[in-house]
Amino acid sequence: MSAQILDGKAFAATIRAKVADHVSRLMADHDIQPGLAVVLVGEDPASEVYVRNKGIATRECGMKSVEHKLPAETSAEDLYALIDSLNADPSIHGILVQFPVPDHLSERDIVARIDPAKDVDGLSVVNAGLLASGQQAMASCTPLGCLMLLRDTLGDLSGKDAVIIGRSNLVGKPMAQLLLRDSCTVTIAHSRTKDLAETVRRADIVVAAVGRPQMVPGDWIKPGATVIDVGINRIPAPEKGEGKTRLVGDVDFDSAKEVAGHITPVPGGVGPLTIACLLANTVTAACRINGLDEPEGLTA
Amino acid sequence: MSAQILDGKAFAATIRAKVADHVSRLMADHDIQPGLAVVLVGEDPASEVYVRNKGIATRECGMKSVEHKLPAETSAEDLYALIDSLNADPSIHGILVQFPVPDHLSERDIVARIDPAKDVDGLSVVNAGLLASGQQAMASCTPLGCLMLLRDTLGDLSGKDAVIIGRSNLVGKPMAQLLLRDSCTVTIAHSRTKDLAETVRRADIVVAAVGRPQMVPGDWIKPGATVIDVGINRIPAPEKGEGKTRLVGDVDFDSAKEVAGHITPVPGGVGPLTIACLLANTVTAACRINGLDEPEGLTA
Ligand SMILES: NC(=O)c1ccc[n+]([C@@H]2O[C@H](COP(=O)([O-])OP(=O)(O)OC[C@H]3O[C@@H](n4cnc5c(N)ncnc54)[C@H](OP(=O)(O)O)[C@@H]3O)[C@@H](O)[C@H]2O)c1
Ligand SMILES: NC(=O)c1ccc[n+]([C@@H]2O[C@H](COP(=O)([O-])OP(=O)(O)OC[C@H]3O[C@@H](n4cnc5c(N)ncnc54)[C@H](OP(=O)(O)O)[C@@H]3O)[C@@H](O)[C@H]2O)c1
Repeated sequence: MSAQILDGKAFAATIRAKVADHVSRLMADHDIQPGLAVVLVGEDPASEVYVRNKGIATRECGMKSVEHKLPAETSAEDLYALIDSLNADPSIHGILVQFPVPDHLSERDIVARIDPAKDVDGLSVVNAGLLASGQQAMASCTPLGCLMLLRDTLGDLSGKDAVIIGRSNLVGKPMAQLLLRDSCTVTIAHSRTKDLAETVRRADIVVAAVGRPQMVPGDWIKPGATVIDVGINRIPAPEKGEGKTRLVGDVDFDSAKEVAGHITPVPGGVGPLTIACLLANTVTAACRINGLDEPEGLTA
Repeated sequence: MSAQILDGKAFAATIRAKVADHVSRLMADHDIQPGLAVVLVGEDPASEVYVRNKGIATRECGMKSVEHKLPAETSAEDLYALIDSLNADPSIHGILVQFPVPDHLSERDIVARIDPAKDVDGLSVVNAGLLASGQQAMASCTPLGCLMLLRDTLGDLSGKDAVIIGRSNLVGKPMAQLLLRDSCTVTIAHSRTKDLAETVRRADIVVAAVGRPQMVPGDWIKPGATVIDVGINRIPAPEKGEGKTRLVGDVDFDSAKEVAGHITPVPGGVGPLTIACLLANTVTAACRINGLDEPEGLTA
């Protein structure tokens, strides 16, 4: 039996379509256009691409997109002044500072400066606390995307055994909180886990967020389990020519797909969900800030 | 084989002795006397006993103890004004509002009003977020006590399989965060868990925080496991006379102690640790607020 391959690109498109739909209703019914501001400090070429892509995706959904490009030597004070003005700007509902930032700036302090209600990356301590205490929070985009995909694939997640490999603040820990909220029995594994194979083997849902190429082999997977591979790892691909590389996940896709019930590929699985959930969070923020109902199907 | 019974009263005494020791050093070396303010709204008799006991324990450790008793009809504004003044008072390092409060007051808003640095109950969203993101936090007292007891009993907890039954904001979830910080592989189980017996059976450490009398039988316990019973349940005890009751935990002590390596009794196990950890948190807060080193052995 071979697993159903979960098409992240197609699923991201359905999320974006829901976002666009909700945006047009917000504009028609309430004259509100959700707005996302992205701040880039310095000239990292990869970051410039990410920021440009976020801007395009934001506009494609009918939202307002604002980009602020600041020189690498921008002081913390000047950056905070910009964040403060965006916090106060009623046309902006989401604020994202593209990381990494130059060394003289503190990512933690930057995130703390953003109004938690506009922290659409869900990275602030306040949002982590709201999530951890079961309150309305902005959830980190990648785990939110995984949650949406799992719900779409499996329906009600209640009672399922979920094993998350990785305990980062960005992925593993918020993923655990989200699955716990949906009443999975949640296990968090990491580099100190004694018997990772045994731990993973009992999971109905496996989320791998480690950053080690193909470390989860097929024989760790319970037959029929749903496998969500968050890892993005670049490895040499001599078969494509000298010096060539390719992307793989944390799961050994070829062996795992023979056992799993559903599995995300890398690339084309979880990857596309992150920006889609950034857009979803921005619409959600616009609704909450304006005291309107949450957009259906776009929140945790 | 019969388990070693973990004496919570004795262990609480060692925590309190450490606190007293640290207090006397803070006073001698830095002229700082840690201070705990407890606020009671209304006249619930049980709450009055708790507040009185906290005051006694605070003074016994050499700390300053302040009690504010407000009438049941105190407005939110007046309560917040008191909290604000305690937040600003440099002689106060810990603030605790005794719950429950009368219905016209919001526990959530009260906790949010307390300076997170003085939130020695560790109940605020900010402290939950700091804990969840691995930063310096005030941890909820009961799970902090369980963590200290586990470290004292087992030494390094890294790699141990910990199963927590219960996912409340007060006990289960912060317990999970604390054990994850100490590098256990952490599973959180709850009322929707499919096969609780199987889940508990693989645990090196079981923390039961449910509130269902004796629901965990001995045959769910892996031989040699450490069992921490947080539950406090009152059940009829006809053997003591008509209408009499007694306290039991969430674990069936008699059968579990035949299998476990270590086990806490109820009463006399986890119960005494909570106030001891409130005192520990107050010393910790005094150190942090004054920019001094954390008190050794009293923090997460
Ligand atoms: N849009 C997306 O698709 C997206 C978004 C974010 C991240 N990612 C990818 O997801 C992966 C993880 O990202 P991250 O930010 O969470 O990484 P991270 O902060 O480096 O965390 C990695 C986690 O994996 C654990 N780990 C390391 N080696 C392990 C081993 N041998 N066995 C079990 N666990 C092990 C670590 O455990 P310890 O805590 O014990 O060290 C840590 O908790 C990366 O490949 C990243 O590129 C993708
Ligand atoms: N100082 C102390 O020693 C101290 C301090 C605090 C609490 N306690 C005691 O600890 C116990 C728990 O307190 P709490 O505040 O955490 O309680 P709580 O808020 O009522 O939470 C109970 C948890 O147990 C879970 N649960 C209920 N029935 C279950 C079942 N049949 N199987 C598995 N899980 C089940 C619930 O799951 P769902 O979320 O799915 O409903 C919930 O997560 C109580 O007995 C309390 O008196 C003692």
